Amino acid sequence: MPQAPFVPVIPAGGAGTRLWPLSRRTHPKFLLDLTGSGRSLLQQTLDRLVPLADRAPIVVTGVEHAEAVTAQATTLADHGGPRARVLAEPSPRSSMPAIALAAALVEREEPDAVIGSFAADHLIGDQEAFARAVITAREAADLGYLVTLGIAPTHPATGFGYIEQGAQGTGAAALRAVGAHPVARFVEKPDRDRADQFLAAGTFSWNAGIFVARARVLLDELAAQIPSLARGARGIAAAHGTARYQDVLERTWPQLTRIAIDHALAEPLAAAGKVALVPADFAWDDVGDFAALARQLREDPPSGPGGVGEPGAGGAPADVQVLGIADVSAVSSTATVYGSGDRHIALVGLEGISIVDTEDVLLVLADERAQDLSRLVAGLDGTGHGRLR
Amino acid sequence: MPQAPFVPVIPAGGAGTRLWPLSRRTHPKFLLDLTGSGRSLLQQTLDRLVPLADRAPIVVTGVEHAEAVTAQATTLADHGGPRARVLAEPSPRSSMPAIALAAALVEREEPDAVIGSFAADHLIGDQEAFARAVITAREAADLGYLVTLGIAPTHPATGFGYIEQGAQGTGAAALRAVGAHPVARFVEKPDRDRADQFLAAGTFSWNAGIFVARARVLLDELAAQIPSLARGARGIAAAHGTARYQDVLERTWPQLTRIAIDHALAEPLAAAGKVALVPADFAWDDVGDFAALARQLREDPPSGPGGVGEPGAGGAPADVQVLGIADVSAVSSTATVYGSGDRHIALVGLEGISIVDTEDVLLVLADERAQDLSRLVAGLDGTGHGRLR
Repeated sequence: MPQAPFVPVIPAGGAGTRLWPLSRRTHPKFLLDLTGSGRSLLQQTLDRLVPLADRAPIVVTGVEHAEAVTAQATTLADHGGPRARVLAEPSPRSSMPAIALAAALVEREEPDAVIGSFAADHLIGDQEAFARAVITAREAADLGYLVTLGIAPTHPATGFGYIEQGAQGTGAAALRAVGAHPVARFVEKPDRDRADQFLAAGTFSWNAGIFVARARVLLDELAAQIPSLARGARGIAAAHGTARYQDVLERTWPQLTRIAIDHALAEPLAAAGKVALVPADFAWDDVGDFAALARQLREDPPSGPGGVGEPGAGGAPADVQVLGIADVSAVSSTATVYGSGDRHIALVGLEGISIVDTEDVLLVLADERAQDLSRLVAGLDGTGHGRLR
Repeated sequence: MPQAPFVPVIPAGGAGTRLWPLSRRTHPKFLLDLTGSGRSLLQQTLDRLVPLADRAPIVVTGVEHAEAVTAQATTLADHGGPRARVLAEPSPRSSMPAIALAAALVEREEPDAVIGSFAADHLIGDQEAFARAVITAREAADLGYLVTLGIAPTHPATGFGYIEQGAQGTGAAALRAVGAHPVARFVEKPDRDRADQFLAAGTFSWNAGIFVARARVLLDELAAQIPSLARGARGIAAAHGTARYQDVLERTWPQLTRIAIDHALAEPLAAAGKVALVPADFAWDDVGDFAALARQLREDPPSGPGGVGEPGAGGAPADVQVLGIADVSAVSSTATVYGSGDRHIALVGLEGISIVDTEDVLLVLADERAQDLSRLVAGLDGTGHGRLR
């Protein structure tokens, strides 16, 4: 068993415009219960991590969401674990500054502690497989690696990044002993042909954006890549708990490089042989758009209030998933309905359509064009509808 | 020019369930402004007929709609013509009893008068061509025929009935002289193969359900076909204007045969060579379902308040017709939106979808399955949603 204490870190940023109007600037994706479980994606993330944590998880979020995050983080399901700490970013600067700040706080308190960074808005299907993979990742992190979890791909997805396993070179024996492997490289979202090749090769995993490392290792490596960023994060952490903290934070934060951890650390360290991969075979999805969410709800139908309404009214086959309180009649339709009103929703002859019925916006979207939603949302400001974002 | 006075008759019945939830039991299709013209289908029908009428048009409608019909009929566009008279049916008994009652009223006042029966909920594109055809039909009616207008078909429609022109037999010369032709037979909605044959033959017209005849001829022919129906209608008419009227109406009406004029008169009289056809080449549609309405709105886009919203937001092509006050953003969509709320409506990647956004019902329908809507509406009672019909 690993000895160093484990501290989960959850960067909770990003609005998720491809799930608008469920997600809004003021109510981003991670605050939503997208699966009818009764828990938001952030709460589900905390529920998964609290049983594995030796210290309170750290959630880093935008200052405008700190209050809502704090409210959700203090209604944790009771695992007897520690409550979450919430750090407010003065402005969004991508994931590396957020993770570096959390790492610096942990390093200051316990230099050898291992942190694990997990997205706030992903879905994971198998809690036990997840826990096993995280424990293995902690052991690999104890060896000094930046460790990532590689999800066994189930289809040639073009919406995810991939991780290629490396050759069994020097040091691989120690990794193999704990059940991990060296990483050759990270690959951005491929086109369909390359995705097919990745799947056929058998040495590629999906990149779930999970990174586990000793806090000090992560910051030392960052100091080698982007010295000002590591220095800034450590400087803010040094002021934490003092009267100067807010002042130092607001002065330093805007100067930190806006960069994702993938580009700042994962890619350069993989090239240097310093990244390890733990194979993971739990169901995982980043629920990036309504097509992904529709797939998810079809595989694992929600059973909350409202439920499935009355699909099949009229005696015709219908496959309609309902999330929320909508009351639905359908004839010959395959659709997903997100209801928030008390209107009756009637569907005829639809194939792969998502319908989001909110108080101020109605969205009707063809799942196969789900990626185009961000273009529509981007255009709202220009047509005087910015208040709806 | 014809000498006998002309009295338009408008049977205004039928809810139009394939346009639900725009049309409801309490607010049937003929009361709706489906084209954004500012006038309901009934009002447009009256607007077309009042300039041609020598007497007030007679609207026969259900007792539950008499008040709304009266309100609409007294806000006629000012043609200087007579106001409409509204007759309330105690219960729906299809078109023949309604037309027979109106004919009997006219016959009692002016036996030689010509009546013309016109659906309350059809669209007609060219007012002048329509007027010319009706005047020709009046002349043919003066010759003793039951006269119908035959619409020149523009495509092999399977949703309309057809009329086949007959051979030029005895009496055809007099008809030809006024610009009419004998009718061989009426044909119900054909399948696609037969519709193709009809179009190729060149001797078939669309049946728009328009019938013109002397009031006395119509009732005498009806007396030969269904004696009790003609006798009942004449009995009610005899009591009109007296204190007994309502009593006679309510006693007699439920005994009248429930039958459409097509089956009661048009088909048997055609077989007997007593039906004439006036060729008409105006644009006509019965707007039977949302697919027909979408075609109509695409050909002749509405320009009322709300207008076309902002299709194309996001820079992508979109072809979205908006009827009502909806405010729309669309990306890569072909759709028709019927709005009644102040919600923003956002569309992504739709092809041939109709969206009806009302206070208590949201309908999303694939135009190519528009006919299936009646199945959904029929099922509403069984699922406890009868109040929405």
